Amino acid sequence: MNLHINFRPIIHVIGLLLIALAVVMLIPLLAEEVIEGHANAFFEEGVVVSGVFGALLVLASRDNTEFSLDVKQAFLMTACCWIVLPVFAAIPLVGITGKSGASLSFTDAVFETVSGITTTGSTVISGLDGLHPGFLLWRSLLNWIGGIGIIVMAIVMLPFLRIGGMQLFRSESSDRSEKIVPKSAEMVKWIIWTYIGLTVACAIGYGIAGMSAFDAINHAMATLATGGFSTHDASFGAFGTAARWVAIVFMIAGGLPFILYIKLLRGRKRALRDDPQVRTFLMFLIVVSLLGAVVLSQDAGLEFGTALTEVAFSVVSIVTTTGFASSDYTAWGTGAVAAFFILTFVGGCAGSTSGAIKIYRFQVLWITLRHQLQRLTSPHRVIPLQYKGARMADDLPLSVLAFMAAFFASIAVVTTLLALMGVDFVTALSASATAITNVGPGLGPIVGPSGNFASLPDAAKWILSFAMLLGRLEIFTLLMLFDPHFWRD
Amino acid sequence: MNLHINFRPIIHVIGLLLIALAVVMLIPLLAEEVIEGHANAFFEEGVVVSGVFGALLVLASRDNTEFSLDVKQAFLMTACCWIVLPVFAAIPLVGITGKSGASLSFTDAVFETVSGITTTGSTVISGLDGLHPGFLLWRSLLNWIGGIGIIVMAIVMLPFLRIGGMQLFRSESSDRSEKIVPKSAEMVKWIIWTYIGLTVACAIGYGIAGMSAFDAINHAMATLATGGFSTHDASFGAFGTAARWVAIVFMIAGGLPFILYIKLLRGRKRALRDDPQVRTFLMFLIVVSLLGAVVLSQDAGLEFGTALTEVAFSVVSIVTTTGFASSDYTAWGTGAVAAFFILTFVGGCAGSTSGAIKIYRFQVLWITLRHQLQRLTSPHRVIPLQYKGARMADDLPLSVLAFMAAFFASIAVVTTLLALMGVDFVTALSASATAITNVGPGLGPIVGPSGNFASLPDAAKWILSFAMLLGRLEIFTLLMLFDPHFWRD
Repeated sequence: MNLHINFRPIIHVIGLLLIALAVVMLIPLLAEEVIEGHANAFFEEGVVVSGVFGALLVLASRDNTEFSLDVKQAFLMTACCWIVLPVFAAIPLVGITGKSGASLSFTDAVFETVSGITTTGSTVISGLDGLHPGFLLWRSLLNWIGGIGIIVMAIVMLPFLRIGGMQLFRSESSDRSEKIVPKSAEMVKWIIWTYIGLTVACAIGYGIAGMSAFDAINHAMATLATGGFSTHDASFGAFGTAARWVAIVFMIAGGLPFILYIKLLRGRKRALRDDPQVRTFLMFLIVVSLLGAVVLSQDAGLEFGTALTEVAFSVVSIVTTTGFASSDYTAWGTGAVAAFFILTFVGGCAGSTSGAIKIYRFQVLWITLRHQLQRLTSPHRVIPLQYKGARMADDLPLSVLAFMAAFFASIAVVTTLLALMGVDFVTALSASATAITNVGPGLGPIVGPSGNFASLPDAAKWILSFAMLLGRLEIFTLLMLFDPHFWRD
Repeated sequence: MNLHINFRPIIHVIGLLLIALAVVMLIPLLAEEVIEGHANAFFEEGVVVSGVFGALLVLASRDNTEFSLDVKQAFLMTACCWIVLPVFAAIPLVGITGKSGASLSFTDAVFETVSGITTTGSTVISGLDGLHPGFLLWRSLLNWIGGIGIIVMAIVMLPFLRIGGMQLFRSESSDRSEKIVPKSAEMVKWIIWTYIGLTVACAIGYGIAGMSAFDAINHAMATLATGGFSTHDASFGAFGTAARWVAIVFMIAGGLPFILYIKLLRGRKRALRDDPQVRTFLMFLIVVSLLGAVVLSQDAGLEFGTALTEVAFSVVSIVTTTGFASSDYTAWGTGAVAAFFILTFVGGCAGSTSGAIKIYRFQVLWITLRHQLQRLTSPHRVIPLQYKGARMADDLPLSVLAFMAAFFASIAVVTTLLALMGVDFVTALSASATAITNVGPGLGPIVGPSGNFASLPDAAKWILSFAMLLGRLEIFTLLMLFDPHFWRD
């Protein structure tokens, strides 16, 4: 097989990322030593294996004089990173033996890691409150590095790969060339510092709202990543109103396009305010939360303020694809169940840490739909499709169409596979939807907001792990590798 | 309000159709007299009201020297016909007092009529076996006239209106001009005779398979229309294997593009065999039925032949959007529930009596998806989109995109509305899906294949009636009327 693909830069980047992973893994290792007073062998193992393997890959692929990638290499690298890293990141979790004595199978460890790093936030672990602090910290860190990973991918890779309409944001990135070159490095640095800054701000907010320092740091990482891992089985049920509003603000912050923060920092004061995607996103959250609060306060006889906190928290949590739970919204009645199932598909803005369909795709759909309606009555008027005042590229609606088709087809296939394993329909449908959208909780007693994925069959966990990666990689990055054309010259 | 729309031809056509409706209503009226020995006052009332009202409309709109429609008139006429006719067609059903003594509310009568005329086949009536034969016949006739109505609309109107990608079939109709003129009349005649011929063939088939003449005629009409109304509460559970295979053949016949039958009759022997939509449709049915039969025969320990009959019947019934039930497939396990829910969305071919998304839209999606995958790795190669060997119009994928967006948004909205009325999630989701796809049965004890829509709240029945019309009119014909632009000059 003559592949004509140079794997060297791909192997090099994976090696570097594994070394970085080992360095990040030192944090929970040290935390264990400081808090518990002794080192945890599983983190030591994780650091050594990841670090040594990474170093070997880097050594094997050195002499890489000029670093640049073509399209196929970019696809392969993106997919490989997201497949390889979770395997190494799962090493410490295999050793989870909480104070409750629970231990994790390899399948569960990989599911939990993929769920963390894709910022989905579904968990197979119960008894979080009794876990060693190192494990809790590692879970939050998985969310956090997954979050920054997806922002960098969305800004550097996806517009270049023209996936699912992301070429819309091509002009916004500094890189318009046909090769990905280190020009983007400067921007990536800005983004990482913004991400760290927002996380610190969030942690301080949580601290002021009454969380312990440990809880504040962990939840801040899971919040900005719109990941949703918590240090408590009760998730935000363990905290008060102030903490919920801090979460609401920073989940939204995680769901905004990070490129706009950079513009803001560079002095474009109206960068966020003028962005149509941001405006629609915020308006949608406000309208849905207010409507929901009115209905809930009437139905449940709650005070409006209390209802607004609960509804806004749950709506923002699901729409930003975070997946923190405060109250079990599926107990609010059948309307809430349907509404939250549908909200699962919405997602935040492009270039954020959130998953699912995302606001700009709905905007492209809406523009196309309006356009079609106009054309139906005026077939001979040429009306150009516009977004942000500029003419849309002709292939943009097609990219979105292809994405939507692949997205819903994936959910249909995963639902069928899970159901064939004996999983009931609501669990199968909502688990596949929540996995592919990277939200976290589904519907029903097993995968619902107060449930736990642990009791699903092992095969279902592997399928859902694949589904989470599929969703995180905007379907096409992974689907592409199954296309025989990709492997031909 | 200066509408600039000439309503005269619209009123004229509605008047003519109401007179035709009155004439068709004479059939159950006469049947009652012959079988029961006395006239049924409700049918008499229906005939008189429809006939007189129709005649008044025709008289009021006469002097219509040249008959031609512009786009707006065509939209309005199509929508108005499908809204007005069910109201008159519902008159006799208000008088349903079966031998069991059950009587129908106005809401139920309208729901049942809309369900019939949109060839959905959901029912609120239980105790079908005890109903007066006139009522049973009228229900089957509602299916039947709805079926021919949709074929004529799909061939004459939709390609002209460019709805949901139907412009793909514009060249296939004889009419390429910008005005709809009676040129189409010749083709419509051919189609009506084909439809009658196939119905007669189906009735003979049912007779040979052992049905009574009355059952055979009724089920033949519901079969060709892919409607799904039966004369028995048990639906096809009341008949044997032979009747099921006759049903399979003629449900498929109802799901094929009727324009191809005309071509076949005019001597193009390979018209059906060479059509990509037909090939995909048949191949899909065969593969899904065989796979399902293998799984069912293993899981339930059934003989393969028995399993194949049951699975093929249910698959063909759902995919062609007929909705006849033989066995309750939701009892075949969770995999079957998920699979049949997904099959609900498939639909038959364009220009047939079936509803839902339809095969050609999946083909357009598939072609677009393949095209996008190719473009991802070769961004500079210009690859034209092709269907049936010809270049696709640029706006075709956009039409399909707009249709899919409106289709799924409609299901989301209807699901939420039903759920807000206290309908449980599975019932709300599957009822809205089965209504918009015009299939008939949903999931769960209420709207499932062995359930009955009667116990739903009245408001839910009105919403579902609207949803059935929305689906039948390919969303846009009805949505259009809610667009303020439509009513401006």
